[in-house]
Amino acid sequence: MPIDFRTEPARWRHWHLDVDGRVATLSMDVDPAGGIFPDCELKLNSYDLGVDIELADAVQRLRFEHPEVGAVVLRSAKPGIFCAGANIRMLGRADHAHKVNFCKFTNETRLAIEEAAEVSGQPWLAAVAAPAAGGGYELALACAHIMLVDDRRATVALPEVPLLGVLPATGGLTRLTDKRRIRRDRADVFCTTEEGVRGRRALEWSLVDELVPPSKWDAAVAARAAALAATSDRPAAARGIALTPLQRSIAGDTITWPHLTVTLDRPGRRAIFLLRGPDGAPGDPHAEGVAFWPLAAARALDDAILHLRVNEPELGLWVLRTEGDPGLVAAADAAIAAGDWLAREIRLFWRRVLKRLDVSSRSLVALIEPGSCFAGTLAELAFAADRCLMHAGASGNAPATLRLGAANFGACPMGNGLTRLETRFLGAPEAVAAAREAIGQALDAEAAEALGLVTEAVDPIDWEDTVRLLLDERASFSPDALSALEANLRFAGPETMETRIFGRLSAWQNWVFQRPSAVGEAGALRRYGSGTRPEFDPARV
Amino acid sequence: MPIDFRTEPARWRHWHLDVDGRVATLSMDVDPAGGIFPDCELKLNSYDLGVDIELADAVQRLRFEHPEVGAVVLRSAKPGIFCAGANIRMLGRADHAHKVNFCKFTNETRLAIEEAAEVSGQPWLAAVAAPAAGGGYELALACAHIMLVDDRRATVALPEVPLLGVLPATGGLTRLTDKRRIRRDRADVFCTTEEGVRGRRALEWSLVDELVPPSKWDAAVAARAAALAATSDRPAAARGIALTPLQRSIAGDTITWPHLTVTLDRPGRRAIFLLRGPDGAPGDPHAEGVAFWPLAAARALDDAILHLRVNEPELGLWVLRTEGDPGLVAAADAAIAAGDWLAREIRLFWRRVLKRLDVSSRSLVALIEPGSCFAGTLAELAFAADRCLMHAGASGNAPATLRLGAANFGACPMGNGLTRLETRFLGAPEAVAAAREAIGQALDAEAAEALGLVTEAVDPIDWEDTVRLLLDERASFSPDALSALEANLRFAGPETMETRIFGRLSAWQNWVFQRPSAVGEAGALRRYGSGTRPEFDPARV
Repeated sequence: MPIDFRTEPARWRHWHLDVDGRVATLSMDVDPAGGIFPDCELKLNSYDLGVDIELADAVQRLRFEHPEVGAVVLRSAKPGIFCAGANIRMLGRADHAHKVNFCKFTNETRLAIEEAAEVSGQPWLAAVAAPAAGGGYELALACAHIMLVDDRRATVALPEVPLLGVLPATGGLTRLTDKRRIRRDRADVFCTTEEGVRGRRALEWSLVDELVPPSKWDAAVAARAAALAATSDRPAAARGIALTPLQRSIAGDTITWPHLTVTLDRPGRRAIFLLRGPDGAPGDPHAEGVAFWPLAAARALDDAILHLRVNEPELGLWVLRTEGDPGLVAAADAAIAAGDWLAREIRLFWRRVLKRLDVSSRSLVALIEPGSCFAGTLAELAFAADRCLMHAGASGNAPATLRLGAANFGACPMGNGLTRLETRFLGAPEAVAAAREAIGQALDAEAAEALGLVTEAVDPIDWEDTVRLLLDERASFSPDALSALEANLRFAGPETMETRIFGRLSAWQNWVFQRPSAVGEAGALRRYGSGTRPEFDPARV
Repeated sequence: MPIDFRTEPARWRHWHLDVDGRVATLSMDVDPAGGIFPDCELKLNSYDLGVDIELADAVQRLRFEHPEVGAVVLRSAKPGIFCAGANIRMLGRADHAHKVNFCKFTNETRLAIEEAAEVSGQPWLAAVAAPAAGGGYELALACAHIMLVDDRRATVALPEVPLLGVLPATGGLTRLTDKRRIRRDRADVFCTTEEGVRGRRALEWSLVDELVPPSKWDAAVAARAAALAATSDRPAAARGIALTPLQRSIAGDTITWPHLTVTLDRPGRRAIFLLRGPDGAPGDPHAEGVAFWPLAAARALDDAILHLRVNEPELGLWVLRTEGDPGLVAAADAAIAAGDWLAREIRLFWRRVLKRLDVSSRSLVALIEPGSCFAGTLAELAFAADRCLMHAGASGNAPATLRLGAANFGACPMGNGLTRLETRFLGAPEAVAAAREAIGQALDAEAAEALGLVTEAVDPIDWEDTVRLLLDERASFSPDALSALEANLRFAGPETMETRIFGRLSAWQNWVFQRPSAVGEAGALRRYGSGTRPEFDPARV
């Protein structure tokens, strides 16, 4: 059974969402029997990918279905525990790819929580009234404000190193150093103290933002949430749009979503995305809801990326194709370029989807062909790709074109804070200016190549051979080496907390996830809870 | 036999250095039979750690023994090949720790080559007249200027991914994207093209800086070298100082250098460094030469770090202690704070030695005790440490003190471009200002703790227990988890090309170096040259 990233509140097993005016409360209440691996009991609000899929769904619904919510309180519904972090048994039995994908997805969700605070007027507040350990504290770290009850039992902890021989790698280490800017020796003490830190020291070391006596807890949380909500620019009186179930059909090796078909070519070890542009001019997004093309296409693409990442690991190459009228894509872009909260949410959703592409460990090849619609936001697919081939002839109908729009110059920054074009032309900012001059033009292959926007303009007579050779060659290389190569070449220029999480932190965690001291027969993840101490390779590298 | 990092030109087997006025020429001429693994023949100017130890020695001697040299030409003495990169057989048979340490050391050497151009007036020129592949091209990438002969045979290439299933990780990928700012799709093409790129395309893509017809090659290289040398601020008429052999004695578990003793505590899995301050006021560095304390101590510490990294992998904790008169350390700092080329070289040498400490995968604990001399440059040892304990009592003689100096506020930046104090106080720049106010004071434990300069001031009565508990606890953790933890916590704040090389790039390479597709029985490194194709795990992660 493939892992399904689609869910809805009625099917949630692990969370409750309550909305009361401007403040929403999301309560973690993990069902121990609800794990995606049947033999891993999710005790103490520990989580697995299934729990996090529901959390991601909550994040998304708060954004789209609740424009009125200006602050989100994250709390535990279980007495005595906030959250014990990622489930260790699950980590012990999951294969390497599952662990890596699990961490990637949970990182993306936490970054979406931060994005909500930073650009969507929806800050999250972690109300930590009991121990928050490992991934539990990392979840709090993703919130804009952390409150800790001042009693003997409530602690924050990152016990991964002493307890498990792995890293707090759902952003934990990076948020300590870069977000909370905790002194490195204190961070070192904290990360090697299995029992964690509580009370005044947690506040003094900036591990939390606020310490509250138990007697004043509920009132203080409510007051802080109200104060946060009061800073929000979200419209209190607006009505959200319902994220009704995303339709998807899997028929053999063809997967179909609205506006998107993905064809799985197993012998070729590749998946071919065909994203279709809008059928007509954009209508009113509020009236159209999930049928509004920019939203529908983003939902489809998001689900496709997540599905393929986890369920189709052997398809190491994603071919990105589009089909449609570039003018209608540009019109759709224009419809969300300005406007109200909903337009903003749709823009931010595209930003997140495109970032998912950037950190997907798959080779990305974009093919710009006659009949395609790489315009504006969809042109970002070409700029996200490792290679982009452009057909240099008409081949029966109109020639292949690439059409830049305002969306390529700021709406969809990468994790490094730059646009994909700025990153592409890091050494030649004048090339970004030249591209900007071409906004709105239907650039043919020659023009696009001259502007440096595509890797290669290919003569029609050579197109099929060139594409086939490229795809076959890619499939012949070491998948691991390609993942590592792409993770380096895609992120030129500045690093941010976000890129450091996916770069430095995750790369080290993935290394640890291969090491006998963590995952060997006698490693810490395998031995956890067995009563037998793990055995470590004593050699440093 | 331990690997010895000490060498001298008379013992070199792989390089020739010729100095002609302002221009030096370093010729690579690897002795195929001179590898450090006897069964790995170093064909085609391929290199192993032994070759790179000699290169590092050349870099160092050019700095200290040749103040008159304003430009260095790097060339091959072998016809038909510039350099084929790291020796593959060596990589195939070396264990994980050796590979990781090999890459770390070669990266440090290439960064030293760049530092020579940037701050020491000694730019390197790569004269590539034949194929430069993999590590061979990476060596050229570290130079300030790359010349390529324009013929059919001379190419630059990074064939690691298609050929070996590993990364160009001696800075290659990062220098493509961040130093040469090559467009990512071109970098992707380049890194997947086994045969490399030559001629006009190499120049157009900025893979090289200058293309020269064969008939004009010698003259053009000479002219370019002379032009580079003309920009140098190094004194043409100065006399260098001889880097005479570094004395070291290994007696059981005690290793002694001038001013430094390292005691190996194998049961405790730790090495205790005791660095002794100067015996008197500094003399004239030109007259004292290698006996001049700041230079002698740096040489000793540098060799100790390198020796322990490679030869003592199971000693996962380095305890940093000092002994001496803080006032004399401050006087020594003052003697190199300004002055001529030699003072500058000694300052830069300390910068490099301290950076080696930052990227060493060992837990670093500094102990500030009565009688110690953590002053100025030596205080950087405390700031480089993951933890620093300070004795809060006199214990018979003078109390333990920490003494800041100007050297702590700019002379020794970390790889991230910030000082260790700026990195430490990333979230509190006012703490850096407060520390600056304390320059020259003998800070006791209470004062140092109040300024945030030490992790903990420890009462004398608790000192022994506290230290023992910390060291024993550290030895009980997973060495791998600690390496990964420390590599994250030490580098808060901005990333630079340098930190990205040791962070993102090296972490990914170390991951690849664990993967079956590279190092398994049927992996690419093992199968290389066998005539049998490697087998790759098809799954992406």
